[in-house]
Amino acid sequence: MHACLARRVIQRTYCQGLSCSGFSLPVRNDHARDMGQGGHPRPLVLVPGSRQFHRSCNNNSGNTDRKPKIARGPYSDVTDADVSFFESLMPGRVLTDPADVAPYNIDWIKTCKGSSKVVLKPKSTEEVSAILSHCNERKLAVQPQGGNTGLVGGSTPVFDEIILSSQLMNKIISVDDVSGVVVCQSGCVLETLDNYVADYDLVVPLDLGAKGSCHIGGNIATNAGGIRLLRYGSLHGSVLGLEAVLANGKVVDCLSSLRKDNTGYDIKQLFIGSEGTLGFITAASILCPQRPKAVNVALLGCDSFSSLLSVLKTIKTELGEILSAFEMMDNATMEVVTGNLNLTCPISNNPFYALVETSGSNASHDQEKLNAVLEKLMDGGMTSDGTVATDMSKIRAIWQLRERGAEALMVDGYTYKYDFSLNLADFYTLVEDVRERVGAKARRVVGYGHLGDGNLHLNITCSEFNKEILDLIEPFVYDWVSQHGGSVSAEHGLGLWKRNYIYHTKSRAAVDIMRLMKKGLDPNAILNPYKVLPAE
Amino acid sequence: MHACLARRVIQRTYCQGLSCSGFSLPVRNDHARDMGQGGHPRPLVLVPGSRQFHRSCNNNSGNTDRKPKIARGPYSDVTDADVSFFESLMPGRVLTDPADVAPYNIDWIKTCKGSSKVVLKPKSTEEVSAILSHCNERKLAVQPQGGNTGLVGGSTPVFDEIILSSQLMNKIISVDDVSGVVVCQSGCVLETLDNYVADYDLVVPLDLGAKGSCHIGGNIATNAGGIRLLRYGSLHGSVLGLEAVLANGKVVDCLSSLRKDNTGYDIKQLFIGSEGTLGFITAASILCPQRPKAVNVALLGCDSFSSLLSVLKTIKTELGEILSAFEMMDNATMEVVTGNLNLTCPISNNPFYALVETSGSNASHDQEKLNAVLEKLMDGGMTSDGTVATDMSKIRAIWQLRERGAEALMVDGYTYKYDFSLNLADFYTLVEDVRERVGAKARRVVGYGHLGDGNLHLNITCSEFNKEILDLIEPFVYDWVSQHGGSVSAEHGLGLWKRNYIYHTKSRAAVDIMRLMKKGLDPNAILNPYKVLPAE
Repeated sequence: MHACLARRVIQRTYCQGLSCSGFSLPVRNDHARDMGQGGHPRPLVLVPGSRQFHRSCNNNSGNTDRKPKIARGPYSDVTDADVSFFESLMPGRVLTDPADVAPYNIDWIKTCKGSSKVVLKPKSTEEVSAILSHCNERKLAVQPQGGNTGLVGGSTPVFDEIILSSQLMNKIISVDDVSGVVVCQSGCVLETLDNYVADYDLVVPLDLGAKGSCHIGGNIATNAGGIRLLRYGSLHGSVLGLEAVLANGKVVDCLSSLRKDNTGYDIKQLFIGSEGTLGFITAASILCPQRPKAVNVALLGCDSFSSLLSVLKTIKTELGEILSAFEMMDNATMEVVTGNLNLTCPISNNPFYALVETSGSNASHDQEKLNAVLEKLMDGGMTSDGTVATDMSKIRAIWQLRERGAEALMVDGYTYKYDFSLNLADFYTLVEDVRERVGAKARRVVGYGHLGDGNLHLNITCSEFNKEILDLIEPFVYDWVSQHGGSVSAEHGLGLWKRNYIYHTKSRAAVDIMRLMKKGLDPNAILNPYKVLPAE
Repeated sequence: MHACLARRVIQRTYCQGLSCSGFSLPVRNDHARDMGQGGHPRPLVLVPGSRQFHRSCNNNSGNTDRKPKIARGPYSDVTDADVSFFESLMPGRVLTDPADVAPYNIDWIKTCKGSSKVVLKPKSTEEVSAILSHCNERKLAVQPQGGNTGLVGGSTPVFDEIILSSQLMNKIISVDDVSGVVVCQSGCVLETLDNYVADYDLVVPLDLGAKGSCHIGGNIATNAGGIRLLRYGSLHGSVLGLEAVLANGKVVDCLSSLRKDNTGYDIKQLFIGSEGTLGFITAASILCPQRPKAVNVALLGCDSFSSLLSVLKTIKTELGEILSAFEMMDNATMEVVTGNLNLTCPISNNPFYALVETSGSNASHDQEKLNAVLEKLMDGGMTSDGTVATDMSKIRAIWQLRERGAEALMVDGYTYKYDFSLNLADFYTLVEDVRERVGAKARRVVGYGHLGDGNLHLNITCSEFNKEILDLIEPFVYDWVSQHGGSVSAEHGLGLWKRNYIYHTKSRAAVDIMRLMKKGLDPNAILNPYKVLPAE
């Protein structure tokens, strides 16, 4: 097929079907939920008390059949003298009124509810240091909290841990528009930070649906992935410096803005992804790439998963430096978003779909590259149908087909949700195996995710929670992922809910080193207790 | 200036002056020495006994005025029984003949010579484990060694440490041409690995002059930077998985090939940049990007350092995703490479020069982008002159002006060499301050480096080593860098020679955590003793 013909076909198929009406939500809000980085509460349509909240703890009224059995650790109780100390340190920034404390005690998807009586809102590293020093001496347990948008029960107390919030640590300290480095306090909201650096033609190398609420410190503490990971890599590479306060109040200043620094071990890496259990991150410096000037999106249909992998390989080869997202959906996903949300798929029915996004510095170059590769894909029989969008409303419409999957599934009734990393060869086999295993008992078995990153979101729906189906799925899926060398948590972290699955992905020797680090840095285990590491 | 005019000017200036004769060395060989990642011995023209070798230790015959005063640690001596044990474990792969052992006892720039009597060449992780388990029990000190191409005395024994070489651990285990992940043993030579993945249209995200000798395990252990760092980021992002053996012989298997894995702390990060002091890396999995199809190089002249920074800013903004190198040279550098090596600079005399490289997937797009930005730079008065090369011989000729700086400086007699990371605002001020400080006592004070990464190579030459000049330079430069928030080792590491400068860049709290990690993972301190951390 000639380039011009390919372009014609693409244009035609796009115009045939796509409806762009009613897409008023921010483009990636729903996407977030399946990216495992939390999501902004605003667009969520969760009904308290619904089955979606079955994993609750403490005094939440939801279904508690999966509530973990945990005994409170040997921590002191918070006394009036403690509160007085905090009040003298930060007058007016110590919350003790139960109504004020309540929102900090529960996570946004209401799986986890604690009974903390105190929320502290420091503004400076010095205050954090004084708080932790006091808590460590008094053996008071502490719950670090950023935007509280996590999905694994990592950001809320299990019992009465003191909540240490980064909410008021929201200063942007500096931006260097030549090096691209932004330095800020840990409580900066991701979206605020991204808007700020946009004025310097920069982009924060992290984007996720919760960006309107989540804090950059929480993102770093949970090693958030998000949709820009394919292009810009992980926070282990993008975070150039960190400042953190240890459990004993000691400030660890690694807040370098340097791109290269090989003077000793890279201590800051310890805190990235430690979920607040090794220290409280107070500030960070982040390398921001240039903000792309042009964005294109293509939706392609494939008749098999192996064709989809061929598309991925070809796209990576041909688009190289401008590829910014490669997402996949199976037909079951497309059926649920079109059937349950009345979205329109602009191309004909296919077993698999690829959503390809390019971001670059020259719109016409990028379009030319994209059209050339699409012609190649069609000529090679790798894709049977496709459509390209270059204007923002159409780009959003296509993204919604992928991003609103989680919302669409909820209409079915109850969703069993999983977030795995898998080798590409195994990626879809798990979906097929689960589909065969649960058979007609489930309403749908759906697979979609960040194929470019090897990150699968497996979802099984039925009309209501059903223990028999759960027992068919678990521990089967965890064992399956483990046996195939995958990860039981691609980007969600372990938090409270997944900590006991750590050995499904990590070796005993690796976990032993984690314990060594935890004991060395937080010997009284006051920081985010009951999280990440399983009980010994 | 119009685009076509800019192109004409560029073409004209290029054709006027550049000589491409006599460039038979691999393009980046000399570059390596100033990139701090070691260099391949082949092209080096160092004369044993020359002043270049003044930093020697033990029985080396060079100038020893900077030899560190270190007492041998409380380690056991290697006995015949130990050698018999190793022989039984690895028949024929235990070197004890002094002539065989000698090359492993000295680093390639001959700054450091040990007196080890045994070299062990394991082929498997199991053998490494058995060796370290034995050494730990016997309290025998061990010198991990890859390609022995380091520049800070980190890869050779100080006394009689047993040399544990990765030379025979050179298997490439797998390549996934869709995910781009290569898994290999740690002794794979970087260039061999890069050639191997080239067949899959991939590129190892690391390139440095020592690539013909250095081992990927050594690269990871030293967190090697190199010329692709600007584009692909550091090894903390590119290394997806590691397998390492601890001092006690325990194997830590974190050899995941997954791009996303948030199950507990990211243990592999500990070993990246630990210079063999925390464990012996046995295997790694590395994310390889697509191999670029097109490369362009431009050499630009600037009349001030602030113009050079404007060029960097504009280039980053306009070239975005295709920028793959941004190197700087001052006029003193250009004078030394043209004067001492008879290279020809294709553009007229300028106070500063920028070498810009693009790598992309479409040659004509990249050239169009590059020409457009050059027009913008000329119109804005940021650059006064420039030339572009697109064919490989001309590209190599331009790269030599930057890469052969170290070699050219040696012709002067003696070179004091420094490798710093600095914020861009301070980058060149240090060169000016040193120039003023040493005055006419030095022959040249020269600054060049990886401006895109903030990595300055400061060089001061004179006819022969002169203690008075040394005392003018040190500790002045280290103090200066520290006071300006820079790093005293951008990419060389600390090894033996720089370990006592660690506090110039790292806080005491950070070094305390390093010690905690060292004590936890290697309580007998048998791994690479006397390196990285200063004596307590």
